[in-house]
Amino acid sequence: MSIDVSALGQRAKKAAANLANLDSTAKNEALLKIAEGLLANQDRILAVNREEVAKAKASGLRDSLIERLILNPGRIAAMVEGLREIVRLEDPVGSVEKMWRRPNGLEIGRVRVPLGVVAIIYEARPNVTVDAAALCLKTGNAVILRGGSEALQTNQVLVQVIREALRGTDLPEEAVQLLASPDREAAVALMRMREYVDVLVPRGGAGLIQTVVQNAQVPVIETGIGICHTYVDASADLEQALQIVVNAKTQRPAVCNALETLLVHQAIAAAFLPRCGEELRRKGTEIRGCPQTLAYIPWAKAATEEDWATEYLDLILAVKVVPDLTAATDHIARYGSGHSECIITSDYATARKFLQVVDAAAVYVNASTRFTDGYEFGLGAELGISTQKLHARGPMGLSALTTTKYIIYGDGQIRQ
Amino acid sequence: MSIDVSALGQRAKKAAANLANLDSTAKNEALLKIAEGLLANQDRILAVNREEVAKAKASGLRDSLIERLILNPGRIAAMVEGLREIVRLEDPVGSVEKMWRRPNGLEIGRVRVPLGVVAIIYEARPNVTVDAAALCLKTGNAVILRGGSEALQTNQVLVQVIREALRGTDLPEEAVQLLASPDREAAVALMRMREYVDVLVPRGGAGLIQTVVQNAQVPVIETGIGICHTYVDASADLEQALQIVVNAKTQRPAVCNALETLLVHQAIAAAFLPRCGEELRRKGTEIRGCPQTLAYIPWAKAATEEDWATEYLDLILAVKVVPDLTAATDHIARYGSGHSECIITSDYATARKFLQVVDAAAVYVNASTRFTDGYEFGLGAELGISTQKLHARGPMGLSALTTTKYIIYGDGQIRQ
Repeated sequence: MSIDVSALGQRAKKAAANLANLDSTAKNEALLKIAEGLLANQDRILAVNREEVAKAKASGLRDSLIERLILNPGRIAAMVEGLREIVRLEDPVGSVEKMWRRPNGLEIGRVRVPLGVVAIIYEARPNVTVDAAALCLKTGNAVILRGGSEALQTNQVLVQVIREALRGTDLPEEAVQLLASPDREAAVALMRMREYVDVLVPRGGAGLIQTVVQNAQVPVIETGIGICHTYVDASADLEQALQIVVNAKTQRPAVCNALETLLVHQAIAAAFLPRCGEELRRKGTEIRGCPQTLAYIPWAKAATEEDWATEYLDLILAVKVVPDLTAATDHIARYGSGHSECIITSDYATARKFLQVVDAAAVYVNASTRFTDGYEFGLGAELGISTQKLHARGPMGLSALTTTKYIIYGDGQIRQ
Repeated sequence: MSIDVSALGQRAKKAAANLANLDSTAKNEALLKIAEGLLANQDRILAVNREEVAKAKASGLRDSLIERLILNPGRIAAMVEGLREIVRLEDPVGSVEKMWRRPNGLEIGRVRVPLGVVAIIYEARPNVTVDAAALCLKTGNAVILRGGSEALQTNQVLVQVIREALRGTDLPEEAVQLLASPDREAAVALMRMREYVDVLVPRGGAGLIQTVVQNAQVPVIETGIGICHTYVDASADLEQALQIVVNAKTQRPAVCNALETLLVHQAIAAAFLPRCGEELRRKGTEIRGCPQTLAYIPWAKAATEEDWATEYLDLILAVKVVPDLTAATDHIARYGSGHSECIITSDYATARKFLQVVDAAAVYVNASTRFTDGYEFGLGAELGISTQKLHARGPMGLSALTTTKYIIYGDGQIRQ
């Protein structure tokens, strides 16, 4: 049976109008009800998930994807804690950023308002279903969720539980919609539904982002591809550089803020690379190096052009020796994805230059790129990490889920 | 001869990297050089323009479009004044909006940076060529301009003069690129050039916006369609309402912030509509009314469904009598384009409700919608009026031509 995506959009739009002016108390109460609902329905959710995981195993889904699909009491507890955290965050809606008076007496203010209907297309982890719904509801938006086909049943039961919880609140149940269709056509219809969708956020790999960019007619916020670099300057504290490089590469290699390419100034390559290579090898990391790197790390593989442009998301590191800062920033400009870039240096002018020249969502001096994250930045929960320049750049907290409107108070002003 | 749009994008991208970190002094000096260049080359510009206007007349172009195409010393003086005004505005680039310290000692700041390469597709008026280039240069962006085919020669000479002026400055000449091709294919190539274009701003009619939305793969800021409403509430000061309605409709009907549909509470329709209709008729305005309106303004035409959804940009006004505030805001939600909406009321709760419920870039109480404009809002010059919700909403000043990046100062922090 084909799903009427347009009817779903229409219901979300209507719900959004009802949500837009609810006060924070009503929204927080609803989020707490959802938290209660998840706990009260844990057995029901886990039963559906077990069935879906069994099917996925039988169909030969990759282990890493199955691992992401699995729910258990610990993961449900984490969802519930996430909801409570979002309740504690400040609601940006209604905040007047600025207000001023014009010479003709008009008073003009800019107030934060919800975006309206937010669509999210994502892969794997069912916790995104709950997180994304909660972030959207907190900011007064209706949400249309479209998860991966392998998690369809789990997402369905989660959305059922969320909507059941909303029934006892001031929030319309229709504020959370699941596009429960694995069809590509349904997803493309969602990407083109300009009448009902105010913004679309794809969360997933390069393939998903590419599909969205090519098909979407609604405004899109791109997220998540991270080809992150760390450049170890000639002036670096090599002990600090070692700690940071190993942390950025190995602490959690499958995420977008993990290090993918290490750039090393030639003056310290001999002092740094053999030891750094050894430490990385002990952590199980494969190295793909430029010819100079291979001289210092003989067991490394030779890097190809493709390596510089690859987001491994794995225990693999590309390494290149560069003659100077400019060669490093040129390499980053060419291959970086605009996510997180870092320099390790003790030189003031070099640090300043790197911060100015590098064009990315987050530019670091002497710290691991793994900190690019809503919690670590102190923004609270995040919907994702934007790698585009419009609207939101870097970790997207609650404020990124709002827009502004001008409110103008007059007493009869007309234009001359 | 086909134009290599990709090479043009590449040159713009390279120029953008050189522009990004120039200080305001260098940028302002370049803008003043352009102003001098326009004055020094006035005869050359006007000669090219005269030739193009003659061709346009011979080809039977509409009078209103020819009027927009014509340059004269007064219009060049206005461009020059516009440049000087932009020089006086504060440069947003480099401003750190906020900086904070995390418990682990990381210092995180958010700094305003240029977008990179801004593409602008526009129609008619050649002054947009100079204005848009100046706004982009001031904010450290490279710009790719694609004007209307009827103004191609005029735009070419203007860009030549701009680039000649840049030769004596710190700014790269390649920072201003003209896509000098009337071909649709070239425009579509520009809309899809994700590698080199950071944002595309279409400025023009509904047809242009639609083409861009359907074809663009680069991020877009939509501008300009204004189906603006004014609702005269039962509690309105009818003298004030009359002044505002007549001003919003007739002071300059061809622009996007002009009034298109008047909504009138039924309780004051008999007192307001006959007089308002008379005043509008004296100004040459045609009225298309709902059945109740026709009872009060017998000479009006009957409105069709299409009238509620039309941006006339002309001395035509659609008029509807409504039973209450909710009917008015429902009508606006259905037919409004999210530009500028106004209520005339003396009732506090009604004003507050209207400001909250109506979802548009600018929502007014007791003032003409004609004020939605960068200068009138006090933002200085504007690139256009965004009617979308992402990134910029309402008049787009210099700040809308920038994005942010996070800068993070550490001393060895790694993630636990």
